Amino acid sequence: MRFTSEQRLDDGVRERAFTLGEIPGILWTPASASPPAPAPLILLGHPPLGLDRMYPRLAARARHAAADGFASATIELPGSGDRPRLPGVEQARAELGRAVRAGERVGDEIVDALVLPLVERAVPEWRAALDALLALPEIGGPVGYSGGVISLGVRLAVVEPRISAAVLFAGSFVPRVILEEARRVTVPLHVLLQWDDEGNDRQAALDLFDAFGSREKTLHANMGGHTGVPEFAAEAAGRFLARHLG
Amino acid sequence: MRFTSEQRLDDGVRERAFTLGEIPGILWTPASASPPAPAPLILLGHPPLGLDRMYPRLAARARHAAADGFASATIELPGSGDRPRLPGVEQARAELGRAVRAGERVGDEIVDALVLPLVERAVPEWRAALDALLALPEIGGPVGYSGGVISLGVRLAVVEPRISAAVLFAGSFVPRVILEEARRVTVPLHVLLQWDDEGNDRQAALDLFDAFGSREKTLHANMGGHTGVPEFAAEAAGRFLARHLG
Repeated sequence: MRFTSEQRLDDGVRERAFTLGEIPGILWTPASASPPAPAPLILLGHPPLGLDRMYPRLAARARHAAADGFASATIELPGSGDRPRLPGVEQARAELGRAVRAGERVGDEIVDALVLPLVERAVPEWRAALDALLALPEIGGPVGYSGGVISLGVRLAVVEPRISAAVLFAGSFVPRVILEEARRVTVPLHVLLQWDDEGNDRQAALDLFDAFGSREKTLHANMGGHTGVPEFAAEAAGRFLARHLG
Repeated sequence: MRFTSEQRLDDGVRERAFTLGEIPGILWTPASASPPAPAPLILLGHPPLGLDRMYPRLAARARHAAADGFASATIELPGSGDRPRLPGVEQARAELGRAVRAGERVGDEIVDALVLPLVERAVPEWRAALDALLALPEIGGPVGYSGGVISLGVRLAVVEPRISAAVLFAGSFVPRVILEEARRVTVPLHVLLQWDDEGNDRQAALDLFDAFGSREKTLHANMGGHTGVPEFAAEAAGRFLARHLG
């Protein structure tokens, strides 16, 4: 992990860009007394639209997390931003778009082709990022995962024992293999569902919530479309993480 | 409205028993500076088990509300406590119990016979209580409704314009006529659903949530059975009311 730039945001939050091999990422740490106490870490998931495009929303979430005393970090997803495109994903995305526009049920093989290559490459990258981040003196633990591609969140929650709570956003298509893995998730979960999400199958989201093996799991469903998560719902997700990581 | 007894709870909350005609009730008002500012009011709904039996849970909710600066009040439901039994309801309850134990679908006519007489008698009583409570100098507004028989909450939210937000607990059978009325509810709603509620049909609860006409409606689903609402979910419901009544 190599830091490539650093700035202080208005509220004193320290923002550092880094690269982890070829993968760009960003780390935000709270303004605090020196020497700072090691902060718990939130891994900020995001949709595969590229870090540059997602930056304003990520930075806003990081500042909220910093106000609760948490560091947060994210890395570019495979196939996004300046990273090489993933084989087959563009075609799967086109087929998905065509099926959705035609009002057809999206086939399992399209969902698999769209999501699984991303998850399979991203999981070891996020784990490597976690290794590097937890080696920094300013980062302690525990670690939470929040948002982004829900299948990545599910897989990470299953395979990565250092993640102790997760906020998941029921906003993307979920392969069958991930639905099966959901039964093996045991960490506390806070699942956000936009009730009228135009790009999401509500029943599939409810089935996924039902499948999670966690003893503590909460579903917060709110009105509005995919990007319309109300401010109070974002705050509730923040309180969930504060309760489990604080 | 006639006050019949008064006590101060440990935390300074003033608890007064009253009667409204033949109907017993309880009013809790926050400890506050004198002269106290008029407090917003939360009507505390409850299942038809009798105020005496429900008292510990109601008092706990009232103390939480008082800590947020809210008065709260409740009255005995028709057919509960020392009030005369409602015709047909005992038989409907027995038939419902038999159907549930036999694993049969509970017929609409049983649900109607169980719930509608209660709702039809209770609604004018709760509105009369509201008239009396809002006439007290220590009670201002706005008014919220929280918990209890969901069909009563739905009907009150439709017919009583002084109610400006409601917390509803998806924990009872809902007559078809109430499901239709739900479309006419427009106040902000916070709906609690116990995902594994043994006495509740999850899909019916989701259908009811979907039916509500409110632009702001939030569903909080949590693990556990009917009486297992986690403490953090009760706190979130309190924050919802504080946001809308505060």
